[in-house]
Amino acid sequence: MAILVAARFDADDWARWWPALDAAFPDEVLIRDRRDADPDDIDIALLASPPPGALRGLPRLRFLQSLWAGVDSLLADPDLPAELPLARLVDPAMSDAMAETALWATFGLQRGFFDCLRRQRGAVWQQPDQPRPDEIHVVLLGLGEMGRCVARRLLGQGFRVTGWSSGRTPTTGNDAAIPHCAGPDALDALLPTAQIVINLLPLTPATHGLIDARFLARLPRGAGLVNLARGAHVVDADLLAALDRGDLAHAVLDVYTTEPLPAAHPYWQHPRVSVLPHTAAQTDPRSAAPIAAANVRRWRAGQPVQALVDRARGY
Amino acid sequence: MAILVAARFDADDWARWWPALDAAFPDEVLIRDRRDADPDDIDIALLASPPPGALRGLPRLRFLQSLWAGVDSLLADPDLPAELPLARLVDPAMSDAMAETALWATFGLQRGFFDCLRRQRGAVWQQPDQPRPDEIHVVLLGLGEMGRCVARRLLGQGFRVTGWSSGRTPTTGNDAAIPHCAGPDALDALLPTAQIVINLLPLTPATHGLIDARFLARLPRGAGLVNLARGAHVVDADLLAALDRGDLAHAVLDVYTTEPLPAAHPYWQHPRVSVLPHTAAQTDPRSAAPIAAANVRRWRAGQPVQALVDRARGY
Repeated sequence: MAILVAARFDADDWARWWPALDAAFPDEVLIRDRRDADPDDIDIALLASPPPGALRGLPRLRFLQSLWAGVDSLLADPDLPAELPLARLVDPAMSDAMAETALWATFGLQRGFFDCLRRQRGAVWQQPDQPRPDEIHVVLLGLGEMGRCVARRLLGQGFRVTGWSSGRTPTTGNDAAIPHCAGPDALDALLPTAQIVINLLPLTPATHGLIDARFLARLPRGAGLVNLARGAHVVDADLLAALDRGDLAHAVLDVYTTEPLPAAHPYWQHPRVSVLPHTAAQTDPRSAAPIAAANVRRWRAGQPVQALVDRARGY
Repeated sequence: MAILVAARFDADDWARWWPALDAAFPDEVLIRDRRDADPDDIDIALLASPPPGALRGLPRLRFLQSLWAGVDSLLADPDLPAELPLARLVDPAMSDAMAETALWATFGLQRGFFDCLRRQRGAVWQQPDQPRPDEIHVVLLGLGEMGRCVARRLLGQGFRVTGWSSGRTPTTGNDAAIPHCAGPDALDALLPTAQIVINLLPLTPATHGLIDARFLARLPRGAGLVNLARGAHVVDADLLAALDRGDLAHAVLDVYTTEPLPAAHPYWQHPRVSVLPHTAAQTDPRSAAPIAAANVRRWRAGQPVQALVDRARGY
């Protein structure tokens, strides 16, 4: 049997991924181009934004392993075989990369450094206030693997952190060191106490458009927003209005409804927005390929695979 | 006896400092305006950029406590009584503030975020490389209280860190966890291995102009520079030339030869420079006033004071 790598990769992506996959799957036949294999030979697919129709006509396909952490676009794909087990990629190195981005954004908002960079364009010398981390309450939306890693690293720097889960029960498991709560009522109570909100939620019908005018209106004036999850969590017009009014001091955005962010989008030139190009946590083939391979070995051995997606829940 | 607070403060500064000093020195008479006191009554001065002549004609003055960590401008003041003991302010909260700034600058350089912000102006979507912290070697110039704190916090985030002292012997004391070296030859060997250089040196005749064309030419192409110490450590024309050639990828600067940075200075509009307005570690009266008060109590009790300046060494 063989493993299809169904990926919308350019030449640079293949150059980074192929050696890592090759090294991680020494005992498997990896197929990069479907035309090189008998469809009956393929029983596993590794998925990285697969091109349309990539999984059609594979009668022996039994297991799907995403190479990305987020599976919202996979689940929205009508070509995804509905009955097959699908695993997300959970890579501690990716959580660390996400934490680095979250720390950069949080220090920048805490210390007013993004305001300094905005004023730099006008050659304006103005020292910002210097609150201590223990005077900053960070509300972290999403307590999955990445959210918990970000929470621990923010707590380690002295910030006050509360994690929030969209579901009725928090998902922090046994990580009692992270203060947390769950559900819409708790969020309503939490937002007025937040100086900084960081979004790391999965995109599901329940979280789509969560960060809207009502959400933003509950934040105290001068708060900062960091969106590291999905563009569709945010209602762009509402965010722009809150920034234009100055109610929200600054937004650090990494993800957008349309990516790449269109050149004419107002975020690009907005003085209160820092635009990152979906780079908060790139999947690193050097760590991700061995993790995908370990999950494939578990599946082949009949053992439980890690990070199996609950399709009803959406992640 | 009484304590003169010799400070070039504006009204906002006094509003922040006076309540903190008042609370920290409950058993002392604090004099804000010299005309309110008999010169013979003043035996101690707290110094915060004292105005010219502030210490003249005080025959009973015996002890000087700076409210700032850096004393280079004090030592350059011909009005400073040459024979009196002078203590710097060593405040762990200030080291923490410095570490926050250093972490923000380091994450931004490691992850290419400053490049993203530069490209934002042109609406250019381009994902930077994502090296891990253990692939980034940070060379930290200066291993005083602040340097050691910054080193420990960078090591805690997984960066490779080497500290360097300008003197012949490293000053890390017993902090063996920080790799370090000292002296000009060691620096020559160290710089070609640095992806990021952070300057936290004291300004002395030995470190003045250290970051010049020769220094910058030893860095690998694409390195980043973070200057959080003093503007006079850097030869501005040499730094601008290295940035213009693209040899140096980016500089995060907090301090300048002339402050506030003049509006016409090329740093303001340089696409590869992030200008902070001397805000990397502001002295926080809430923590600094009690520390100054504890040193004054030590002096009054005849005990050794902390952070006494060695005038020959310059800090």
